[in-house]
Amino acid sequence: MKIVIIGSGNVATHLSLALKAAGEEIVQVFSLNLNNAETLAKRIQAEPISNISKINRLADLYIICVKDDAISEIAKEFNDIDGLVVHTSGSTDIKVLSSELKHVGVFYPLQTFSKTKDVDFANIPVCIEATDAKQLDILKNIAHKLSSRVYTIDSEQRRVLHLAAVFACNFTNHMYAMANQILLNNNIDFDIIKPLITETADKILNDLPENVQTGPAVRNDDNTINKHLNMLADLPKLQEIYITLSNSIKLSHKIV
Amino acid sequence: MKIVIIGSGNVATHLSLALKAAGEEIVQVFSLNLNNAETLAKRIQAEPISNISKINRLADLYIICVKDDAISEIAKEFNDIDGLVVHTSGSTDIKVLSSELKHVGVFYPLQTFSKTKDVDFANIPVCIEATDAKQLDILKNIAHKLSSRVYTIDSEQRRVLHLAAVFACNFTNHMYAMANQILLNNNIDFDIIKPLITETADKILNDLPENVQTGPAVRNDDNTINKHLNMLADLPKLQEIYITLSNSIKLSHKIV
Repeated sequence: MKIVIIGSGNVATHLSLALKAAGEEIVQVFSLNLNNAETLAKRIQAEPISNISKINRLADLYIICVKDDAISEIAKEFNDIDGLVVHTSGSTDIKVLSSELKHVGVFYPLQTFSKTKDVDFANIPVCIEATDAKQLDILKNIAHKLSSRVYTIDSEQRRVLHLAAVFACNFTNHMYAMANQILLNNNIDFDIIKPLITETADKILNDLPENVQTGPAVRNDDNTINKHLNMLADLPKLQEIYITLSNSIKLSHKIV
Repeated sequence: MKIVIIGSGNVATHLSLALKAAGEEIVQVFSLNLNNAETLAKRIQAEPISNISKINRLADLYIICVKDDAISEIAKEFNDIDGLVVHTSGSTDIKVLSSELKHVGVFYPLQTFSKTKDVDFANIPVCIEATDAKQLDILKNIAHKLSSRVYTIDSEQRRVLHLAAVFACNFTNHMYAMANQILLNNNIDFDIIKPLITETADKILNDLPENVQTGPAVRNDDNTINKHLNMLADLPKLQEIYITLSNSIKLSHKIV
């Protein structure tokens, strides 16, 4: 299976490394920024290109890992190609891939990627979609080489997953960042709170988050809540978030 | 060391089990609800009591694990006792323990506890405080039997830690709950998102959360943000939270 990777960001990097480790041949890495293409291409023994006209026309699979709003534009470059063209976006409909493309699909790894942190693909849910059964089988085979969790998910369900992921991951990480800001302001090292973060994530592996909610809001402990709001007087944005989320917890638990 | 546990909730339960496992003798468990006292006392071979007048007056250590606003009231019951009386609250000043008590302190395990989930105390930061060095040593010795992470923290710093913990744990768990709500509404199993939650928590063990933020807000991807807001039209509370947090992420990353 000859693969071309379009993009050189977090998803492109981790997916390329996983595909390479699984024995796939990545023939090219395309990025408008040649330096970025070279950096990634070097790690997977591929050819770096920054000119789209130099794309190998005979690859089996083209994986588009670019910003959501650039997918449709870049996909048009593959209109005359026989290979399967997929995007990797959670929030983008398969239909964004031009109807002139012969074979299209989606290969969405439901995970958060940062270049500085290795990930083990084996445990990452890979959500695949294709417009016909043969292409779906191709994606299924590749996905199974990377991960034990392969799901066939249509575009609508995938959008829902991506929205849920924003809460479960992006907003969660922002909570960690706000905790760090509070600690920093008081010269306390972020390290002390890490076991709490790990345990909070571990708890929901065997129970629903609604069942293991702790803290002043779910106890309806307004005395503590008010103390905290006073402490946040100099951080009005965090104060607003504290109020919004405490009220939301109370509402979810039918306390108010 | 003879210990009396005041309370039978999550903290009382996990702390008692850890102390027992470390070889300490827990002589009594007090709870206004005798059933709850009995349930916990049975697990640690202690005497259950629900009448405060039956408290053993000769114990070495009394650990108060009750709701924050009940601490001062219950602490008064120990005014004539020689043993060390501590509370376990993150947000409560040591001064709430009556000045008539002979020896006072704080023993605050910085962790989230649920009765249904075992915890390994060895990794939990235990924050201790006492009004004199001798009592601090007593607490230090006990804390070290439970955990390798023992911190001497004054009441003001402890309040800050507790506030940060609300963001890092309570609000984070609420994010998981909202993700689950979105998935449930669309008949998608929460399981699919668990690897993402685990990885999000793992990422900050070796990097600051500000450095590993992902998602549409930090990419300033308003197209995706607007799609998500449309999807949340039937969940206006979640929509409000989505807007508040996305704006906060943008602001933190100087995007707006």
